[in-house]
Amino acid sequence: MQKAIFYPEMNLSELKKEYDQILARYQEFLQAGLQLDMSRGKPSPEQLDLASGMVDAVAHTDSFIVENGSDVRNYGNLDGIAEAKKLFSELLEVPVENVAVCGNSSVNLIYDQISQAMSHGICNSTPWQKLDQVKFLCPVPGYDRHFAICEYFGIEMIPVPLHDDGPDMELVKNLVESDESIKGIWCVPKYSNPTGITYSDAVVHAFASLKPKAEDFRIFWDYAYCVHDWYDERAKLLNIFTTCKQYGNEDLVYIFISTSKISLSGSGISAVAASDKNLADIKQRLQVQRLGFDRVNQLRHVRFFRNVEGIYAHMQKHRALMAPKFEIVFTFLDQELKSRGIIAYHKPKGGYFVSVNTLDGCAKRVYQLCKEAGVILTAPGATFPYGKDEKDANLRLAPSYPTPEELEKAMELFCLCVRLASLEKLLAAKGYSIKQESLSG
Amino acid sequence: MQKAIFYPEMNLSELKKEYDQILARYQEFLQAGLQLDMSRGKPSPEQLDLASGMVDAVAHTDSFIVENGSDVRNYGNLDGIAEAKKLFSELLEVPVENVAVCGNSSVNLIYDQISQAMSHGICNSTPWQKLDQVKFLCPVPGYDRHFAICEYFGIEMIPVPLHDDGPDMELVKNLVESDESIKGIWCVPKYSNPTGITYSDAVVHAFASLKPKAEDFRIFWDYAYCVHDWYDERAKLLNIFTTCKQYGNEDLVYIFISTSKISLSGSGISAVAASDKNLADIKQRLQVQRLGFDRVNQLRHVRFFRNVEGIYAHMQKHRALMAPKFEIVFTFLDQELKSRGIIAYHKPKGGYFVSVNTLDGCAKRVYQLCKEAGVILTAPGATFPYGKDEKDANLRLAPSYPTPEELEKAMELFCLCVRLASLEKLLAAKGYSIKQESLSG
Repeated sequence: MQKAIFYPEMNLSELKKEYDQILARYQEFLQAGLQLDMSRGKPSPEQLDLASGMVDAVAHTDSFIVENGSDVRNYGNLDGIAEAKKLFSELLEVPVENVAVCGNSSVNLIYDQISQAMSHGICNSTPWQKLDQVKFLCPVPGYDRHFAICEYFGIEMIPVPLHDDGPDMELVKNLVESDESIKGIWCVPKYSNPTGITYSDAVVHAFASLKPKAEDFRIFWDYAYCVHDWYDERAKLLNIFTTCKQYGNEDLVYIFISTSKISLSGSGISAVAASDKNLADIKQRLQVQRLGFDRVNQLRHVRFFRNVEGIYAHMQKHRALMAPKFEIVFTFLDQELKSRGIIAYHKPKGGYFVSVNTLDGCAKRVYQLCKEAGVILTAPGATFPYGKDEKDANLRLAPSYPTPEELEKAMELFCLCVRLASLEKLLAAKGYSIKQESLSG
Repeated sequence: MQKAIFYPEMNLSELKKEYDQILARYQEFLQAGLQLDMSRGKPSPEQLDLASGMVDAVAHTDSFIVENGSDVRNYGNLDGIAEAKKLFSELLEVPVENVAVCGNSSVNLIYDQISQAMSHGICNSTPWQKLDQVKFLCPVPGYDRHFAICEYFGIEMIPVPLHDDGPDMELVKNLVESDESIKGIWCVPKYSNPTGITYSDAVVHAFASLKPKAEDFRIFWDYAYCVHDWYDERAKLLNIFTTCKQYGNEDLVYIFISTSKISLSGSGISAVAASDKNLADIKQRLQVQRLGFDRVNQLRHVRFFRNVEGIYAHMQKHRALMAPKFEIVFTFLDQELKSRGIIAYHKPKGGYFVSVNTLDGCAKRVYQLCKEAGVILTAPGATFPYGKDEKDANLRLAPSYPTPEELEKAMELFCLCVRLASLEKLLAAKGYSIKQESLSG
């Protein structure tokens, strides 16, 4: 393959020629009538098939009695059945007494935690709603649902840069240790949503050794992609729970996890791991909030996976489906875009997303161009607090749902759109303006 | 059977003699070592067996695709699958577009509604947390979990008397229409927890025609025992949704329901029915709070029950188990206690509880005596806000869980304890004091 020329190094005439060629190819796509939604990290039907047996894992002829003698068809075990606690305890490497197993949504667990902090504070601190200011640090780009929770509760979001080894910890430390109104930070520490980076040991140590100005500051450790490794070379994340303990800081972190992308999305189970004090605080709410979680579904998960090895073995099957899709994305990005100097991206070894930074000012345009040709990406800006990507450069790709064939088509289109948007930008910079409007009408 | 003498009509010597006899019988129970928990409305294992087939209702070989083409194993349908909405719509006789089908707990739905009102108000009203005072009316005796939610959020509870046809509506109307700080009222309108009464048509009309001073006043209509009829003579509850509409008051009510005591407790599904405006308000929260509820479990319920007739047919099987237990309770209460003029109670035609009013000042003592002989009742006072039963007279019996044989033993003991406590009280009134302490030591 011929080495591509860097777009930023092209002269006006080269750019014009390139633009006309790419536009012609894009217009073919407009005719083709693609229809693909790549906006969310949804597992594919084939991935769900892997865990379909889950629904049969507790049959009416099986025993419903769990370890403590309780019948899971009835009320009981507010913080989950012992067997499920053990499973998550092993998975997270957190003592079983520091785990509560909950319902089908870790986003809901996180929401409830923020809601509780707003109305009741954390471990008897002043309820956040009574404070003049409550701020959260938001490593960016990050997970839009975290930001949405902050926005809903009027928590001010402060973006901090997310590097390839984690958030800028010097900045985080300075802010957290000087500003009492900073109450939390959002972390997706392994295969971060969306950049796919994993926090280094140094970053985890920096987190665990924080001396926050606010006693009710907490790290919201969303371990969504705990076992979602698609390559032999697995990202190793240091155990935040143990590390916090080493620094005498065990109350500093909540760890959230769910099986939404292990078993079935929407019909999985979730868990929170936290210090004795934090967990007691959570249970005070739980006992008012509900009579219990769906224990039959907890039992299904225990019977289906058996143990943590069962989960790892299961994830190998996910890997067989996910790795080829990540490869498709990487190949397109490398050959079509990186080679032309118009994107930067990190190549994740797992998780659900690939995050692409275009030339500044191109993301919205790429989104629009893709949409007009029938491919829906995550809305540009979604990966930033308040939907504001100052550079208008970040786009999140979610390759899990489409088939490999669809994904190839979608990536071909995506690359054309990034090239078009980049060319428009570069041409404009040379004083040659192309009307940035719909090319489909 | 010989007609019993009313205790309140006995003279001192008769009371003494009776006391000695009953004490002797009670002491036999102390030896017997009963162990029974009648504190909560838990279905019996036999009742759960009726719906065990639920867990097989969606097998991995079945289709997971629902009406709108969506795969229930994946994320989607934030407010429930269409099939489940239809089922609850028929059950509640509320238009399907006014129903959202949710997770395993209606208590959780109710909690979330209060939590949302606290932090965000209701339909853009001032968040309740910003108001100096927020009050709820609490028909008493009532459901302790409702009261616990109020207490948790610092909502002031105002008890209002619950008569045999519903709350004292003249008082409710006066309070709600004059006091802007009254934001809600707790209702268990059919087979009320704990008295088992059902609201009359007049009471429903009085509710539906309220003109609350507060625009964000809402009726919390907890329809927990919607189809829990144990006798041919079923309680008929007027449709509050339709009736509110007739008065142009459709935003006045939230209807909550779950299948916790229809299918499996803890692994059922729940729903909320509300006006377009109220439901839009709820969905604004839901879309931040979670990605969706467990749709596989919703589909299980639809496949297991098929339709509303399926639910009614299923409840006949519950009736076969519950009616004999209610009869046991009624027989004991009538023959042993009512005949002696020492209790008052309403005989419910369904639901999960029988509520007994002893002579004033006896409830705690009865609880203690039962406990010492191994039978745990619902804590006295639990049926009142802040756990305060001024008269110390109300006790809630939950006959569902024990076997008929166990229930007979428990009721025999309960009746002895009520007799003992009443005798102590009546003797004390005649100046003859019996040390009210443990009789077991």
